[in-house]
Amino acid sequence: MAEFDLIDLIRSRCEIARNDVRLGIGDDAAILAPPPGHELVVCTDTLVAGVHFPLDTPAEAIGWKALAVNLSDLAAMGATPAWALLALTLPEADVDFVDRFATGFAALAAQHHVALVGGDTTSGSLTITVTVHGFVPPGQALRRDGARVGDQVFVTGTLGDAAAALAARRRHTPPQQREALDARLDRPEPRLACGAALRGLASACIDVSDGLLADLRHVAARSGVGIEIDAAALPASAALLGAFDGDERLALQLGGGDDYELAFTAAPSRAGDLLRDLARIGCGATRIGRVVDGAGVQAFDAAGAAITLAHGGWEHFA
Amino acid sequence: MAEFDLIDLIRSRCEIARNDVRLGIGDDAAILAPPPGHELVVCTDTLVAGVHFPLDTPAEAIGWKALAVNLSDLAAMGATPAWALLALTLPEADVDFVDRFATGFAALAAQHHVALVGGDTTSGSLTITVTVHGFVPPGQALRRDGARVGDQVFVTGTLGDAAAALAARRRHTPPQQREALDARLDRPEPRLACGAALRGLASACIDVSDGLLADLRHVAARSGVGIEIDAAALPASAALLGAFDGDERLALQLGGGDDYELAFTAAPSRAGDLLRDLARIGCGATRIGRVVDGAGVQAFDAAGAAITLAHGGWEHFA
Repeated sequence: MAEFDLIDLIRSRCEIARNDVRLGIGDDAAILAPPPGHELVVCTDTLVAGVHFPLDTPAEAIGWKALAVNLSDLAAMGATPAWALLALTLPEADVDFVDRFATGFAALAAQHHVALVGGDTTSGSLTITVTVHGFVPPGQALRRDGARVGDQVFVTGTLGDAAAALAARRRHTPPQQREALDARLDRPEPRLACGAALRGLASACIDVSDGLLADLRHVAARSGVGIEIDAAALPASAALLGAFDGDERLALQLGGGDDYELAFTAAPSRAGDLLRDLARIGCGATRIGRVVDGAGVQAFDAAGAAITLAHGGWEHFA
Repeated sequence: MAEFDLIDLIRSRCEIARNDVRLGIGDDAAILAPPPGHELVVCTDTLVAGVHFPLDTPAEAIGWKALAVNLSDLAAMGATPAWALLALTLPEADVDFVDRFATGFAALAAQHHVALVGGDTTSGSLTITVTVHGFVPPGQALRRDGARVGDQVFVTGTLGDAAAALAARRRHTPPQQREALDARLDRPEPRLACGAALRGLASACIDVSDGLLADLRHVAARSGVGIEIDAAALPASAALLGAFDGDERLALQLGGGDDYELAFTAAPSRAGDLLRDLARIGCGATRIGRVVDGAGVQAFDAAGAAITLAHGGWEHFA
């Protein structure tokens, strides 16, 4: 199948009408009409087979996830998504793979009314780069540099499921017991409604893609503050609680990435409004720590003892 | 070297100040301020090592070319470039490669005042996806679908050099004799000033990335017309004339890609203004054919006989 037929196939799976798309796929570039009086929020993320997803991941899940990880970045900025471009590098012109990939991509795009406006298909190792665009009112984007000493730290949903899905595979847990965890790994739900609800309320925000501590370190560094996490407060899913215990679970929750929840900070005076607004849109959030004077991120156990990573797992020290 | 150090290295090489970049590299996404009353033109292109450039291409040239092929698409729309994102997949964290790659990328970005506002670095086979953004006044973008019967067909600069560079390598032409051709292959100059000058004058435009005939076929198909090319009129560089002759040169000019010249159509009544405007900005253009009733693209020799491709080369038939 020729490149142009693959493009037609992808396009036919991803048809979403938007008035602000003046010219979509099929020319040298797309022509788009940004809404007056808004800022544009843009990011790009690449998924490499075997690095960002296991080689046996279903094609639909790869398509979904390639868009999801990008929309999660828009969610973390509080942006409303609009347009995507898809650069797809494939080892061969495998129509079945492309059809299923595009179906997964389109399912998530339709949920959030995202128009696919351009892209490129090339030959090479399976690599997918998606670029997404969204809008925010001027000055209202959620950034990493706004956390202030005294702010509280929150996270949406639950943590650790995606990393637990990979850990469960390694220990040969039967597929039926992994189902809920695998769904989190393969089909993450970008927290777009939560991000939009946090505009004007959160002081800083980031999505949990590399792991809670690693991601919060960026917030701490960019804001010039320290962050303390109460490990006992970390929200866990029933699936995670059923499958992992103790330090193993803690390591998954503090260090595991790919959950695509939002970690954010807010002034205590705003916490009440904020949790109420989130609850109203069905987005649970949990208070997990505080912003302090200093630098870096430190987790503490229920007894108040600092927790640190050693030998690939998490250990307590006095 | 860690991912974040590589990002810092790339960022330090690519610093361009723009007022419309509200937040650049370092958050979940960039925050950009599109100019009021303009349309946004966006495209993305991927280069795969060994597919889009020879494996021994200098790193500076890869960086330059990754941006150039994208800016060429903006040129073909008549857009003024503004912002780029760079998704770089690397086999290893090779600081020297990244430094030289970023230097090449930055040299072209600086020429056209393009700010690098985001990206991603990942581990895998060398693959580079760049996304670029530009602006056009509403309704003035050059599209592929505007060619009309009776229009004339033009091309900027000269054709065939990039393909000739590859052909000369295959036949072991000494490097010093290939220099001018190699420069066209490795460091294409996107025709941004030409594209902007063509706004309001050209009826359709495309960049010559896949080869003149292949690219004009898109214009013909999208415009619902046929295109006739006078092979004898195709502009050739001194380097090409010195290295290739006859049908071999013709094949390079009609079928060779990667020159990143602009092929465009215009009404005869506008041709004079158009060539004058282009000449004023130092962009030569040559009339090479006409738009006719029908479909597809056909080249003719000086005697008016149709030319067709056979067995990997170009043959005349009666």
